[in-house]
Amino acid sequence: MKAVILANGDFPKKQNLISEILCANFLIACDGAVKHLKKISKEPDIIIGDLDSISKSLKKKFSTKIIHIQEQETNDLTKAFFYCIQKGFKHIEIFGATGKREDHTLANIFLLYHYSKYAQVCIKSDFGTFEIHNTPCSIASFKGQQISIFCLDTTCKLTSQALKYPLKNLSLKNLSQGTLNEALEDNFKISSSKKTQIIVYKKS
Amino acid sequence: MKAVILANGDFPKKQNLISEILCANFLIACDGAVKHLKKISKEPDIIIGDLDSISKSLKKKFSTKIIHIQEQETNDLTKAFFYCIQKGFKHIEIFGATGKREDHTLANIFLLYHYSKYAQVCIKSDFGTFEIHNTPCSIASFKGQQISIFCLDTTCKLTSQALKYPLKNLSLKNLSQGTLNEALEDNFKISSSKKTQIIVYKKS
Repeated sequence: MKAVILANGDFPKKQNLISEILCANFLIACDGAVKHLKKISKEPDIIIGDLDSISKSLKKKFSTKIIHIQEQETNDLTKAFFYCIQKGFKHIEIFGATGKREDHTLANIFLLYHYSKYAQVCIKSDFGTFEIHNTPCSIASFKGQQISIFCLDTTCKLTSQALKYPLKNLSLKNLSQGTLNEALEDNFKISSSKKTQIIVYKKS
Repeated sequence: MKAVILANGDFPKKQNLISEILCANFLIACDGAVKHLKKISKEPDIIIGDLDSISKSLKKKFSTKIIHIQEQETNDLTKAFFYCIQKGFKHIEIFGATGKREDHTLANIFLLYHYSKYAQVCIKSDFGTFEIHNTPCSIASFKGQQISIFCLDTTCKLTSQALKYPLKNLSLKNLSQGTLNEALEDNFKISSSKKTQIIVYKKS
């Protein structure tokens, strides 16, 4: 059983992503993100957030589905994520987490570090997918797929197998150094000098 | 004298940003990004990159302005940046660095750490501006401006003045913890437990 969260960034245009939203076992919209669902004739199971971005008419229409959480310590995506965890979901896909305000995009991507303690989680957009992996790991890909690797632990040295530009015991000193790589086969491997977590971006 | 670099992400829509591109002392387009300039009736001074995304017709039209750099160790933005440095520019503004592929967005934002060794540099989009500052620092803002702080050095503890949600000797353990703050006055201050650099996002 998989939950889908729709955050308030760019709504996907690609049909395979829209199909995933349409077929979600459980769909939570973050606050004003619910406005995008009308155009795909889908209703959310729950709307969650501090309700600063949903329109009055949608608030009225979905009044029985709204969970208003006022606290400002966490963003709406985190409120939605932990609602799913409380409901018992162990597999959560997030759409609309990127695009528009870039600080939201960054925050949402690196919240994967936090979320991954509680569930299998990824972020999907028209451009690609962010996943989080514990090293050492073998990651599914396709030959020629554009890959970027991000690691916040700059003391950790990474080594790759089956990437076009190999990482050889390399610490990614800023977040740009592991980007714009390419998979050579239908999977690639990352190992590291100590156990760590990496965020992997796969271009669609 | 200020150089403007146009990267190949989202082209700005806001008139004040378009005016900055129109009035640039020196304008470099990264590869295929040059296609956006036609709609604002502006020609670049230079087009730089590995030329994998510019159209044949634009390549022909601007043949005398193209600098083809094949090496794949750096991205087109970095090629453009160091061309400006060689030309003697000490103030560089980057547009089109965000939007579209999210791994490019991340790489471009965190390249500010690298670029800041050589020039005063910022990234501007329709949504906001990324700047990089050495701590301690006083940063211009306006009352109510939405602010996010990013710091890759997770061992460094930050303290703020004149932010709505104060940082009190806080290490930003992942990149999300310093986001979604708000300026209380027309500037705010960040100090730190040791000298470091922070990336500051100011919503427009």
